[in-house]
This record gives sequence, C-alpha cells and structure tokens, in this order.
Amino acid sequence: MKLQTSDLFEAMAPEMELVDQRVESAATLDFPIVSTLIKDIVRAGGKRMRPLLLLLSARSFSFNLDRAVTAAAGVELLHTASLVHDDHIDRAALRRGQPTLHTQLSSGAVILIGDFLFAQSAILAAATGNTRVVTIFATTLAEICDGQIRETLDAHRLSQNRDDYNRRIYGKTAALFAGAAEMGAVIGGADDTSIRELRGFGVDLGMSFQILDDVLDLREGAQILGKPAGNDLRQGVVTLPTMFFAAGADANSLSTLDAIVSGDETDDSVIDHIVTAIRASGALEEAEREALVHARSAESRLSVIEDDETRGYLIDLLNLTVVRSA
Amino acid sequence: MKLQTSDLFEAMAPEMELVDQRVESAATLDFPIVSTLIKDIVRAGGKRMRPLLLLLSARSFSFNLDRAVTAAAGVELLHTASLVHDDHIDRAALRRGQPTLHTQLSSGAVILIGDFLFAQSAILAAATGNTRVVTIFATTLAEICDGQIRETLDAHRLSQNRDDYNRRIYGKTAALFAGAAEMGAVIGGADDTSIRELRGFGVDLGMSFQILDDVLDLREGAQILGKPAGNDLRQGVVTLPTMFFAAGADANSLSTLDAIVSGDETDDSVIDHIVTAIRASGALEEAEREALVHARSAESRLSVIEDDETRGYLIDLLNLTVVRSA
Repeated sequence: MKLQTSDLFEAMAPEMELVDQRVESAATLDFPIVSTLIKDIVRAGGKRMRPLLLLLSARSFSFNLDRAVTAAAGVELLHTASLVHDDHIDRAALRRGQPTLHTQLSSGAVILIGDFLFAQSAILAAATGNTRVVTIFATTLAEICDGQIRETLDAHRLSQNRDDYNRRIYGKTAALFAGAAEMGAVIGGADDTSIRELRGFGVDLGMSFQILDDVLDLREGAQILGKPAGNDLRQGVVTLPTMFFAAGADANSLSTLDAIVSGDETDDSVIDHIVTAIRASGALEEAEREALVHARSAESRLSVIEDDETRGYLIDLLNLTVVRSA
Repeated sequence: MKLQTSDLFEAMAPEMELVDQRVESAATLDFPIVSTLIKDIVRAGGKRMRPLLLLLSARSFSFNLDRAVTAAAGVELLHTASLVHDDHIDRAALRRGQPTLHTQLSSGAVILIGDFLFAQSAILAAATGNTRVVTIFATTLAEICDGQIRETLDAHRLSQNRDDYNRRIYGKTAALFAGAAEMGAVIGGADDTSIRELRGFGVDLGMSFQILDDVLDLREGAQILGKPAGNDLRQGVVTLPTMFFAAGADANSLSTLDAIVSGDETDDSVIDHIVTAIRASGALEEAEREALVHARSAESRLSVIEDDETRGYLIDLLNLTVVRSA
C-alpha cells in the first residue's frame, strides 16, 4: 500500500467543490445566527471521506456527476446531523476544533438543528430520483441510530463479547461508509455483484477505521487528540483493545477496569495506570492486526473495478484510514 | 357541518388496523425495554388523524391499499418521532420552576430513539417505491423542523407578527397534514390540480387545528388539559389569541404580558389574571373565527373529489378538529 494521497484529493477537487456547495446551500436556515453556526460545523468538515467514497464508487462505473454529487452531499449532511446529536449526547465541547453547538445554543435548539440536517440530507437523497438510493439512505440512518443506541445502552458494562462490539461499531461507523459506497455503485449503474463488493469495501473500510480510532484513543494523549488518553474508558465505552486486555488481565486489573467502566472509579491516576497497562499488554497491536485484516479484505473487493485509476484512488482512501494510526 | 364521525372510524377500521401493525413492527428494536417504551408511545397515539387523512386522500382517487398503508404508517411514525423530541425539549424547558416528568431513560437515549423513529419512518416512505412520495416526506420533515426551530427561537418575545405565527404553526402542525394529504393523492394517482387541492385541504385543516389548540390552551384549565390554562404563555410562546389581545390591550396589561412572555414574571396569580383578561377580551372568539375561515376553505377544496362517501369522511375528519374546541 502506498501512502501518497495528494493525487486523490487533487483529482477529485472539482467534484468535491460541488459537493461542498450543495452541502452549504442545504444547510442554510433563515435564522442567521443558526445558519452561521451550522456552516461553521460543515466547513470544518475534515477530510470528507464519506462523500469522497461515494463519488469514487460511482466513478468506478458510469459516472453521473449531478446525481452522485447530490447523493454525496446527502451523505455528508447525514454524517453532520449525526455528529450534532452525538456531541450533544456526549456533551463534547469541541468538534473539528470548533466549539460544539450545545455550548452556544439551548439543548432543544441543538436537537432540532440535528433533525433539520437529517431532513435536508433526506431531501438530497430523494433528489437523486432513485428509490434504491433512498432506501439505502434510510436504512443507513436506521443502522447509525441502532449503533448509537447500542453504544448508549451497552455503556458501563465490561462483560461484552465481540459480537456486541462489532455490531456497535458497524452501526456507529461502518454503516455510513457501506451505504456511501453502495449508493455510489448504484448511481454508477454497477451490476449486483459489483454493488455488493463495493458495499463490502465500505463495511471493511469502516470497521478498520473505527478499530484504529479505538486504538488511537488509548495510544495517544491530549496533545494529539485534544482529550486525555482512555477517553472511551472514562465514558464507560468498552472497545476492542480493552476487550483483548481484559481477556488476559489478572483479577486485580480486571476489578479496577470494571470499576472504571462502570463509573465507580474516576480517579485520573488509576485510569492512567490502566491505560499504561493496556499499552504494555500488546492489546493495541492485537487490535491493529484485526484492523489490517479488514483493510486487506477491503482491498481484495476492488477487483470488480476495471478502471485502474479509480481503483487506485479507492486504495488511497483506504490508506488514509491506516495512516491515521501510524 | 355534521358532528357524527363514528361512520368514518368504522369504515376505515380495517385499513387503520393495517397501519397500526406496520407502525408497531417498524417501531421494534431488539432492546426489549426500549421497544416496550416505544410501543407504549405509539399505542397511546390518539385519533391517528394524519394516517387517516392520507388513507382518505388516496381513497378519493384510486386506492392502492398496500402503498397507502405503508405511507400512512410512515406519517404516523414521523409524527411520533417528532413528539419524542418535542417532549424531551419541553421537559428541558419545564425545569424552570415547573414539575419535571419522571424519566425512564437518559437524555441521550431519548434523542437517539427519536432519531431511530425518524429513520424507520423514512424507510417506510422509501418502501412506497415512489420518489415523489419520498420527496414530499423529506420536505415535510424539513418543514416540521423549521417550525419547531422557529418556536424555540421566537419564544420569549412578545413583538411578533401574524406572518411569524402563521409560518410557525404551518411548520409545527399544518405541514404534516398537508404532506399526508398530498402523499395520499399522489399514491391515489390524482391529477395535479386535485393533488394541489388535497394538499391545500391539509394545510387549512392543520392551520384550523392548531389555532383551535392555541385557543384551548387559554380557555381550558388543568381539569380538561392536564396542565394549567395559559401553558403556552408560561413557556414564552405567543399564540394568535394572545396577539389579538395584545393589539387591544392597555399599557399596563401589555407590560405584564411582556414580562410573562419574556419569563421575568412567573407568579401564577399574575398569569391567571392575564388569562382571565384574554378570555374577557373576545380574543379567543376572534381566533376561532380565523380557524373557521380555514375550515371553510378546507371544505371548499374537496369539490375535486367525485366519490361522495370519501368526501363525506374527509368532512367528518375536518369536523373532528372543530369539535375539539366546542
């Protein structure tokens, strides 16, 4: 795998510019203060991996620019809507380096703005005029909610199995990557086998992305992440590296871990101590190997794409998720 | 207008039973506790006026039962999702000196369950396989959010005009009635003129419904409504009767009203005094006359329907909204 991705961003810049325009105009409300706040969130939007995946999936087959851009904007807005609600639920203070909405608006306004962005994303999905795209879109939204509900209800409980974790991160992260790739392939007019493989690419990419994100949460401290290492643990969220660590931990560590996850133990030095123990146990590397299995599986699915250039860009996009943990 | 509506409910009972089944199965999550809570909300769902309107609108033309039932279930779930978020938002507002409701779930879980119900309603809209229906659905959701955001941002401000009020209650209430009637007419295969008239029927029905609801809030006390008279005022929400009262009020009453709406004055006896003054001013009757204008306009739009029986049922449905205030 090569690590160079500047070609990808340069090649797709004109299409991504169109996506940004669609997203901005859809996120406009005629309350200026609210509009400005929404646009700040949208503009701060990171790497736009999800719309990029959708555009590349469409480009792999027969590229209908306007329809693909419309769906890509819908996917980005759906992601934004979901972040607005999540940040509110998590009481996060910052997102993409900007103050989150709930630090500036009432709780009710934040919930409604999230709903408004959901509605705008659904309007964009409907504007593709393709009922299959709309169905994928709506199903994806349901899967995201399912994942988030699971994260909320599974929290503060150490005894979880791999199925719980997989289903949770599928909904939380992989579902939208899968939906974006599938929508793109459908818009590109791909055959059913290719649509299935592209969707599979999205699933594997998303799973790899989230596992590495969970590793990062334990490996890096406040300087890199803007939050202390072990933030998931502090929130009672049990991730794959923690599961690997727990499987080999002595009774003493296990009891401390249980107290942290359940919220009974909140002492920073105790949490730092467990984070150090997790790092030393090899659990992070074990989780990274799992992420790599997903990344390899993702790459293998791209054999259905005949266009070498676009396949190369999709591999670049995949590398972006792997590079994050390097 | 006749007031008998038992024929309507009896005639539509088989179709409404199918709608209820679709709603219940869509509202099922595999977390039993959450599923039970959602089903309680769905089952408590009152008269199901919105899905009934959709079914009758479809029946006015060429009735495709399965598609109409699917869309009707989507509309009911959209309404339910919106109530889940609204109740959550209002509960937050109720912290200001009023009794807080007992909650069984965390704030985050409630937001996510609302999102999940939005997703399920969108899946049902997509399942109609009709992109026009999906577009109406998504646009309606956006209008509902717009109305609710307006209500939140317009709150605590007495100087509002009729346009502010109309736009607010259009989004809050009339948009979903309008969307339901329009979706039904589209599914029924009506011509464009008839679709427009049916949509107009929904708008007028919804406006009449909401104005009378706003009158009721000032006319009836806790025995009828389960909340004190003038609840809107206590929440800082300025409705049509209050606007009519303000237009003719003396400087003293106006200053008191302003203090109540802005939240500076929370003394129950002062609020009761203003409510009594509003009742005595004729403002409630003036607002009722406005509601009646909408109801008459709604009825006149039904001339596009050839089937006497279905037109009669739609008039019955319209009467249901008027009867509420009798």
